[in-house]
Order: sequence, then structure tokens, then C-alpha cells
Amino acid sequence: MTPVLPSPQPPSLGFRRVVIADIRPAVDGGRYPTKRVAGDRLAVSVDLVADGHDHLCGDLLVRASADADWVRYPLEPQGNDLWQAACELSAIGRWSYTVEAWVDAFATWRWGIERKAGAGVDVSVEMLDGARLVREAAARAAGDDRAWLEERSRRLAEPSPLAERVAAALDAQLSLLMRRYPDRSQATRHEPPLDVVVDPVWARFSAWYELFPRSWGEAGRHGTFDDVAARLDYVASLGFDVLYLPPVHPIGHTHRKGRNNVVSCEPNDPGSPWAIGAAAGGHEAVHPELGTVEGFRRLVDKAQGLGIKVAIDIALQASPDHPYVKSHPEWFVHRADGSIQYAENPPKKYQDVYPFDFAGPAWRELWTEMRGVFVTWIERGVRIFRVDNPHTKPIAFWQWCIESLKADYPDLVFLAEAFTRPKMMYALAKVGFSQSYTYFTWRTTKAEIEAYLRELTSGEIAEFFRPNFWPNTPDILPEHLQFGGRPAHLTRAVLASTLSSNWGIYGPVFELLVHQARPGSEEYLDNEKYELRTWNLQDPQSLAPVLRRLNRIRRESPALQSMAGLAFHPTDNEYILCYSKRSPDDSDVILVVVNLDPGHRHTAWITLDHAALGADPHAPLQTHDLIGDGRYLWQGPRAFVDLDPGVMPAHVLRVYRKLRRENAFEYFL
Amino acid sequence: MTPVLPSPQPPSLGFRRVVIADIRPAVDGGRYPTKRVAGDRLAVSVDLVADGHDHLCGDLLVRASADADWVRYPLEPQGNDLWQAACELSAIGRWSYTVEAWVDAFATWRWGIERKAGAGVDVSVEMLDGARLVREAAARAAGDDRAWLEERSRRLAEPSPLAERVAAALDAQLSLLMRRYPDRSQATRHEPPLDVVVDPVWARFSAWYELFPRSWGEAGRHGTFDDVAARLDYVASLGFDVLYLPPVHPIGHTHRKGRNNVVSCEPNDPGSPWAIGAAAGGHEAVHPELGTVEGFRRLVDKAQGLGIKVAIDIALQASPDHPYVKSHPEWFVHRADGSIQYAENPPKKYQDVYPFDFAGPAWRELWTEMRGVFVTWIERGVRIFRVDNPHTKPIAFWQWCIESLKADYPDLVFLAEAFTRPKMMYALAKVGFSQSYTYFTWRTTKAEIEAYLRELTSGEIAEFFRPNFWPNTPDILPEHLQFGGRPAHLTRAVLASTLSSNWGIYGPVFELLVHQARPGSEEYLDNEKYELRTWNLQDPQSLAPVLRRLNRIRRESPALQSMAGLAFHPTDNEYILCYSKRSPDDSDVILVVVNLDPGHRHTAWITLDHAALGADPHAPLQTHDLIGDGRYLWQGPRAFVDLDPGVMPAHVLRVYRKLRRENAFEYFL
Repeated sequence: MTPVLPSPQPPSLGFRRVVIADIRPAVDGGRYPTKRVAGDRLAVSVDLVADGHDHLCGDLLVRASADADWVRYPLEPQGNDLWQAACELSAIGRWSYTVEAWVDAFATWRWGIERKAGAGVDVSVEMLDGARLVREAAARAAGDDRAWLEERSRRLAEPSPLAERVAAALDAQLSLLMRRYPDRSQATRHEPPLDVVVDPVWARFSAWYELFPRSWGEAGRHGTFDDVAARLDYVASLGFDVLYLPPVHPIGHTHRKGRNNVVSCEPNDPGSPWAIGAAAGGHEAVHPELGTVEGFRRLVDKAQGLGIKVAIDIALQASPDHPYVKSHPEWFVHRADGSIQYAENPPKKYQDVYPFDFAGPAWRELWTEMRGVFVTWIERGVRIFRVDNPHTKPIAFWQWCIESLKADYPDLVFLAEAFTRPKMMYALAKVGFSQSYTYFTWRTTKAEIEAYLRELTSGEIAEFFRPNFWPNTPDILPEHLQFGGRPAHLTRAVLASTLSSNWGIYGPVFELLVHQARPGSEEYLDNEKYELRTWNLQDPQSLAPVLRRLNRIRRESPALQSMAGLAFHPTDNEYILCYSKRSPDDSDVILVVVNLDPGHRHTAWITLDHAALGADPHAPLQTHDLIGDGRYLWQGPRAFVDLDPGVMPAHVLRVYRKLRRENAFEYFL
Repeated sequence: MTPVLPSPQPPSLGFRRVVIADIRPAVDGGRYPTKRVAGDRLAVSVDLVADGHDHLCGDLLVRASADADWVRYPLEPQGNDLWQAACELSAIGRWSYTVEAWVDAFATWRWGIERKAGAGVDVSVEMLDGARLVREAAARAAGDDRAWLEERSRRLAEPSPLAERVAAALDAQLSLLMRRYPDRSQATRHEPPLDVVVDPVWARFSAWYELFPRSWGEAGRHGTFDDVAARLDYVASLGFDVLYLPPVHPIGHTHRKGRNNVVSCEPNDPGSPWAIGAAAGGHEAVHPELGTVEGFRRLVDKAQGLGIKVAIDIALQASPDHPYVKSHPEWFVHRADGSIQYAENPPKKYQDVYPFDFAGPAWRELWTEMRGVFVTWIERGVRIFRVDNPHTKPIAFWQWCIESLKADYPDLVFLAEAFTRPKMMYALAKVGFSQSYTYFTWRTTKAEIEAYLRELTSGEIAEFFRPNFWPNTPDILPEHLQFGGRPAHLTRAVLASTLSSNWGIYGPVFELLVHQARPGSEEYLDNEKYELRTWNLQDPQSLAPVLRRLNRIRRESPALQSMAGLAFHPTDNEYILCYSKRSPDDSDVILVVVNLDPGHRHTAWITLDHAALGADPHAPLQTHDLIGDGRYLWQGPRAFVDLDPGVMPAHVLRVYRKLRRENAFEYFL
């Protein structure tokens, strides 16, 4: 017979009866923070399970920083062991939240008294049990509350008629005070707390305009920061609020690329701004032809006056002429022949770019230096960074860099330019990027757009990944813009600006309908990346008036200022896409209908989802097209649309709903 | 101007480039163990993401216990950053697994050589880089491998014709050896490891028979363990392999319940076995009328000889006569008048039952004592416990109790009798219960059965929750058995035994079609819980032959021995349910068709899901009814069935499929 083994010790906190599970929101079970912006509501739900039939009680605990005190919000039961509470995130920073829950002896007791007294059971012994609970709560209270509870405890225990004592037990004021002084000695708290990064509002709602300052000089002269400042009212007039500049650092000469990315350049070719570093300096210096650090500061100031934030591009790589190559050769990979390893995508070589060795022997010093680059520009007034190819630098670097920078400067915003596989894009967003480029640029059919937006706006992804939709970039002139003309440009602008609360264009090529590509590629012909261009901003064909209108609609429509509240409405034409956005406070609904076919007029019947619109399905909907100014009155589930892309391929409709049936004419803006 | 803040230190392990995410299986992100049985395959998938375009490499690490060495299984890429590996769990116990992954410099280099050499690029410098990688691997190797790698390193570096060196670089043997001696100095390992509890096979596949020994005596005499042993061949002949006995401990006298659960009993009433404890002892003693501990051991031995395991019921509560009441009053809740708190569901009182105070001041000693009860019965040969109302004891108690018991006795199986809310049922399974009672007992319509089985067999729930389906229990005579007669009993037996790999009945009332309930309740009339009954096991109406057939089909059909491989097939009649089960090794497919209406014959067209059957949709299916012995040849997606509940309300069909189209007559058992 097996000898009986010694019994192990019970766990030290075994008296905690409540099990806390499935706190939401949570990213990877709390491993990464959720994202919100200042002023947002954080609604937390959680499963609370405990043995037996006792009543539970719990709080959501929230604090604005690691050294702040926890603020408690009572959890409310939703049925089936689900509980919820919400709080407002009033300020930017890294907040934390967790849940604490315990068995509520008083509520359990009170419920028993209610049932027993109702059934005529003698509860005189129970009254003494209750008196003890109230006396214990009195000991946790102070002042008037304490005195009140002590008196009530005596009343429950005294030999007065039972009916009076039952009434005193069930009294609402007693419940209120008992909830105020709970016995949490056996409470379970979820550890560790979860984090939520609270960003400035423009992390969630922004309109970006990217331009190459080199082309904004007068009469073909190399443009400067001051030239951009002088014409910034144009960008402001279009309603964009982020001015995004490609790298502003000195451009290398060794292996400089010529026009249209040819391998050898002509003497006057300006080179690619992404070949960073020359005799004039590296990532902390300014390209001399753009001006000076003071010129940059003047541009930032001018922009600020126009309500525009300046974002710069940080590309953590070096040209062969970068000062680091001589001062810090240990930050690069060396080949067996002693040369520095250039970038490559075998068999292609990019000899004008040296990648840094982020996991090499000197990684600590390199990381510190790279972080310092951001600090330098932050100190020059930059709060938004577009990061070039973050997926070619270690994820752990970004986590450390962004987290530690935001600890010092919590209002920073980082946009990840990672056009790569989805899991890497999500990984970068999880570790700290505030916004991300997306596959929107290539999603053109109704099925593709619906599926992609469902992915981005539902479940855990919506908690950490903020899309920024771009119809074009200096690297991408997608096929539909090459061949779809003005209708395609209009369609893509409407989709980007209304599907995503963050959007941007690379201008002025976008509004000027520039669409010539290098043959067989998605690359703009005569790309500003490699040469100076001049643009006629006054071109009568320019889409500037439409962009201005779209950005105004966005500013006036809370429904378009977050990724929440999106719903697709079925249509019977696969070229006609229909979706609505409803603001979280239900004050605003926008319905968008787009003809995705740039070549043909299409009509369609839409099957309206009144529940998604928050509208009474039996009342008519009034809609007002904020672009074309048409007004439509729709009755019932089906609505007819007719969109001619030669005129305008989209309706952006404000929806006026009847919210309640009682008042037949009560519409709601 | 804000002063620049000091730069923080980079994280200590920043050089680890691979991020490991979403390891599956995982229960609550690894907080609770996954469940398997001995001999199972554990297939693990994981997302591996790293910066840049380097090739990755990784292993699944598995160990059979905390002090065993990790065994490595190479992860294979599945595309889109998903990787997989599998291993066999050869023995019972608590295994662990995790994932380690790293950037594979050699594979990256080899891929570059392949692309560059193919494009005619000079790779002589690259050859020197490769020679270094191979030399470093040689230093990690020993013996012949080391010598071979050293030689190969020299060959890559020597001034022989480049083509020869490229061939030497791309050679498969080199890749094999380089994989054998990888550089894992920058590897990321997922911490902490995840656990998988590997149970004996009968945790996954079992057929339970519950009986009250009190009724198995001769001629109305109180039955004993020896009486049960004497008639155990009956249970064995029906094919059941777990004999489950209600509590076998002395039964209390104070407030003993009479027949049909009346509050006061007659002098000869035997009382409820769940009122545990009397002068003769408590949870470690045996009810004198059942015999002795030796008699119990004889029953266990007899059962073992018949291939049956004896399970006993552990109900952690006391009658007022339990020895603990005097020896350990501190293990009970005391009311204000000094009396011990009885169980209640206000306003109902259960004065014959005292609950233990699992979170009270003496909880540590109580927990240790309760664990000791299990140890006592384990030492008497019990390996399976049915636990009564586990949801009224703290979840943390079960976690500690089951985990620590299984550390000493890894072959234990615990069945949770928690008929309560779903989250509690799942919580108990997560913390250690091997099997669980379910809502099956009340799921009767096609929609209910399909929805419930989908919940139980998909996603995370299937990783930790093992259902045990019971058509009836001593506490539950569901309405459909009260009024559905023999057809309903047949239907429920077929459903329970083929939908779930663990099933059980409370007999012999089930096979004898006992169906009288106390009016307006789900309680058997004249329940054995409160009195002795006598049963005629030879009743010609008995369902024994069908139960024998069902259990034989289960033993002969791997498809029915796990919860995997279930699919529902649509039918055009809402009373006709159709589903198939396919064994994980694809060797066996069973298709079940059930008429859920006990009152009427029904016909239906089934739309067969050939993919779920693993069958060629263009070839016929041969099916053989293992109950009725009919044979049907079905061609195409639709099959006709006709089920008369008066004859037999179900087909349980073995499916013979054509697996490949080439051999028109190749069927597969």
C-alpha cells in the first residue's frame, strides 16, 4: 500500500472567495495597454464568480498615473455574472485600472430578511446577526455616519416589535451607508492592473497633409521652411490640421539616387530625403537647402497659429555620409571584408542606405542615441512623428522608446508607416504606436472594404490599433488612382475621410489629380522624392474645394471623429457601398453612399439598418447631403440612390431621425 | 524651454528581436491548464513576429513535469507569421509547454546566397560571412558534426571557384547541421510556460452507471456493498465502466428527511445519504448498513475484475450529528444565538444540513481536513470522485485541493456536479475538475442541442471543459422523460452516448422506464434518496439491450471517444437532428439521425456535409445502422430518412466513405 503523503499547505489567500475573470477592455490579457483619448469614457466589464448564493459587490479602480490614488466606481450587475462600470479619462497620460470584488455579507443578509419576513418566518436571531454587521461597519465609518450606523445597530438588536426592526433592516439609507463602508478584508483584487494610454484628442481625430518643402519654393527654386510657412494658409484653408514633412535632415551624396530612382544621379539632383546624413550633420541637423533649425521653428509657430501641428518623418537609417558612420561604426553591421552592410532585398542592393544594427553589440548606446533624436525634435516643438518603416527595427525598441518618451511627454503621437504583414502592424500598435498606416490604400471593392473595416473596428483590435487612411502616399499611387481619374480621387477621399477618423493625403499631387506612374509600378512618375516639382495650386480642376468640404463635415460631425459606431447597410448593387457612423453619445449620425465604379453611373436600393442608425423603423428618415446639398425623405427599410461619378460619386448624408414614436415630428440632429 | 530630461536605460533583454504571441491552446492566456489524456497529440500554434525580413526559427518546448528536461519540437511556418508544432503526451501528469524563437542568421544568409547567386551577383564576400556562421556553429557542436562543420567552414572561405562554394553553401546537409546547432543567444522564450493536465483516458471516454446500493439487497433488505458486488455483472453486461455510488457515509438522524423528502421521517426511513455524519462517523466512515470498509474494498476489487472503476460521491457538508459538529465547531458558521447555521435558500430551511465555513477563521485546518477525506478514499482504491455541489465551496479550495491531490495521484478524475450558472461551471472546470455535469439534461430541441454542442466543442471551452451527459439523475427526472415514454428514453440515451464521449445514467430507473414524478416537479416519486426500492432487472420492457448496444458501439468507434470532430448536418424537419462525429485520426465516422418527437413518425431530407465527413462528395456513401442493422447507399448531397419512434427513434450509422476519386470502389472503414 502506498504510504499517505504529507498534506500541502493551503494557499495563503484562500479566504478570497470571488474569482475575477475576463476584464475588458484588455489587449493580450492586459500585456499591452488599451488606447483612449482625453475626455473618453472607459467602460469596463468583468466576470465575477463566487461560490454559493451570496451577493457580491465590486468596484472598478482607476488611477491617472502609477503614483495617484485609486478612484473607485461601483460595478453594476448585468446578469449572468457580468458586471460593468465606467469612468471618464479626463487627462492625457498612462492610466491604470483594475477590479476589486468581495462577498457582500450585508446585502446577502438583507436579501434573506426580505424573503424570510415576506414568508412570515421569525427573523429575531437574524436581526442580531445583522446588528453585528452594522456595528462592524460603524467601526469602519467616522463622524455622523458612524453614529448613525451605531444607532441603527442598536435598533436592530433591541426588543422592539419585529416588524419595526425588519423595516429598519430594509431601509434604503442603511443599504447606502453599508455600501459606503464595506468589509473588504476578504476582497479579491485583479493583479496586475491593466493600463490605458490616454492620448490627446488628435490621436483619434486628425487630417494630415503631406508635402515636400523642396517643391514649395518660388519659380523652381528649392523650397525652404519659410516658403512652406508663407503658403501654409493654403493647407489650413483645406481644413487639414497636421502638416507632415518628409525627413528634413541633410541628404547624403554617396550612391545618391537620381530622378525616378535611377542608380546614378545628375550633379543637380537633390536626392532622396530618406538618405539621411551628410557633412552638414545627421538626424538632429536640418538640410541646409531647407533652411535652419530657426526656420523650422518659425514654421512650427506659423502652423500653430493656423491650428496645424507639424509632424516630421523619422527614418532610423543612415546614408554612407552620415556622421555616425565614422563616429560610431559599431552601430552598423560589418561584412567580412570590413565594409559596412548596406540595405538589400536580395538580389537588389540599396547601397545609399545603411541600416543600424539594433541588436548588435552596441545596441544599448544606439537605442539611447535614437531616442535622443526624438527628444531633440520634441524640444524643437514637434509632438507628432511619422515613423518610417518601424517594422525593420526591433519591436522591443519601439516599446521602450515610445513608452519612455511618453512618460516624459505624454502628448506625443506616433504614426507607424509599416506596410507589412498584419501581425507586425498590430504588434507595433500594441507596443505604443498611436496611429498606423493600413491596407485601405489597396482595398477597393465593396467586399474588401466591408471586411477590412469590420476587422479594424471590432474586438480587441479596436482597443489598440488606430487606422490612418491614405488614398495615396509618395510611395504609392495605386492603380485605381492611375486610371480612375477625378471620380476615383473623389471616391477615395470620401472613403478615407468618412470611414476613418484619421486620414491624410500626399498633396498637392492628390488634389491636382496627378496620376502618371512609372510604367508597371505604383510609383509616381517624376516623383518629388528625387526631384523638385512646381505645382499650380490654383488649377481650376483641383479637388481643393471638395477636400475643404470633407474636412468641414468631419469637424462638424462627431460621428466621424472616432472609429466607433460604424455599420454597413446592404445594397443590391456591388458597386454601391453604404455605411453609417453614429457618434458614441448618439447625437449625430452620418450615412455615406459611394459609387465605387469610376466609369459608370449606378443606381441601387439600400436596405437600411434602422437599429444601427438608432432610428425608429416606422418613422421616416430625413437626410441632407452635405456635399451635393440634396435632401431626401426615406420611409421604410428601402432607399433608392442614383450616383453619377461624372458629377459626384458619393452622398455624405446627415441623418435626422425620429427617436421616439410618441411625437410624430420630433426629429433629432 | 523645458529642460531635456535624462534618458532612461534600455531594457536589459532588448536584443531579443522575436515577439511571441497568442500561443494556443491556452486557457485564459495560460492562467489555467489545458486538458488532454495520455496518448493525445498536443498541437501548438503561435505567432512569431520579428523586425525586418530575416528568417526565423523556433521550437515548441515540452516537459512531462516541472523537474523534467525540456524536449524540443521544431516549429513549422504556416504562413502569415503563424507557426505550429505537435508532440505526443505519452503519460499522465501535469506537463508544461512553451515556445522559444530566434532570428536564424544562417537561413537568412542561405536565402540571400540563393537569390544573389541565381541573379549572377558576386557573393565572394558573403561566402566569408557564411564561413563565420558555420565556424560558430562548429564551436557549439561536438564530435563528427563539429569536424564536418569546421571543414565546411574552411571550404566556404577557400579560394576555390565560386560556383563550387555556392553549391557547398546551399547543400541540404549543411542546413540540417546548422539547424541542429543554432545560435540561441538572442532567443526569446515565452514565460511563464503553459500547463497541460494529462489525465487517464477514462477522463475523456467513460460510461457511468449510478445506483443506490440500499436498493440492491435481496427481498427488500437494505443492500450492502457485497450485494452490489454480487450483481455487478449486470452493470458490466450493459457496458458501463464507472460505477458511481451516492455518499456511502453514516447518515444523520437529526431532522432526517422522510420518504418523498417530507420534513419528518418515520422510524424506519433510511434518510438521505447526503445528510452525512452520525455517531458511526463522518466522511471517512462507512454507513453501517452498507457494510464495512473491507466490504467497500471487496466491491472495488470485484469491479476492477469486471473492468469497472468505482466512483464515490463526496459532499462536503455535515448532518447535525456529524462528529465535526462537536470536535470542530469552528468549522461551521455560528448564528447570534450560538446555534450553528443550517443550509437555507430563504425562506426555505434545510435544517438537516450544516455547510462548512470554507472562508471562516479556521479555513486552513478545514481545507486540510477536507483534502484528507479524499486521501482516505484514494487509499481505499477510489480514483474517481463525483463532487456534490462544488459551486457552494470556494473555487480557490478546489484549485488547491485538486491540484495538490493530482500532484500526488495524477490519475484522479473529478466530476463536478454544479448545476448552476455557466461561468461558475466553467470556472470549476478551469481550476481542475476533469468532467462536468451539463445543461444537456434540459436541452431537447434541435436548435438547443446544436447551439449547446457548438458552445461546448469549439474555442477555448473545449480545451478545459469535458462534458458528461446524463439523461437523468436522482435529482432530475426531466419533463420529456416523464411524458415521452420509451421513445424519449431511447432518444436521450442515443443523444447522450453519441454526442458526448462521457455519459451516464441513474439506473436501473432509467432502463426500467420509471417516469413517475412528484406532481409539478422534476423529482422522481418515491425517490431512492429517501427510501429503499426493489427493482426487477429482468423486466422484458427494459432498455438494457439498447444500452448494451450503445456502449458496444462506443467502444468500437473511436469517433465517439472524444468531443472532437462533431458536425451538424441540416435537415428539412425540425424534429430530425443529424450529426456526425469523425475520429481525430480520420479512421472512423459515425453519423447519427434522431427523431426528437417521441409522439410521431417523421421523415426528412438531410443535406450532407461531405467535407465534415471527410468524404468525396461525388462518390456514394455506404452507411450501416449499428442499432437497426439497416444499410443505406446515399448518392449526392441529400439523403432521406424515416424514423418511427414506436420502433426506434434513431439511426447510429457507421459511414463507409470513398476517400479518393481514383479508385471508384475504395471504401474506408
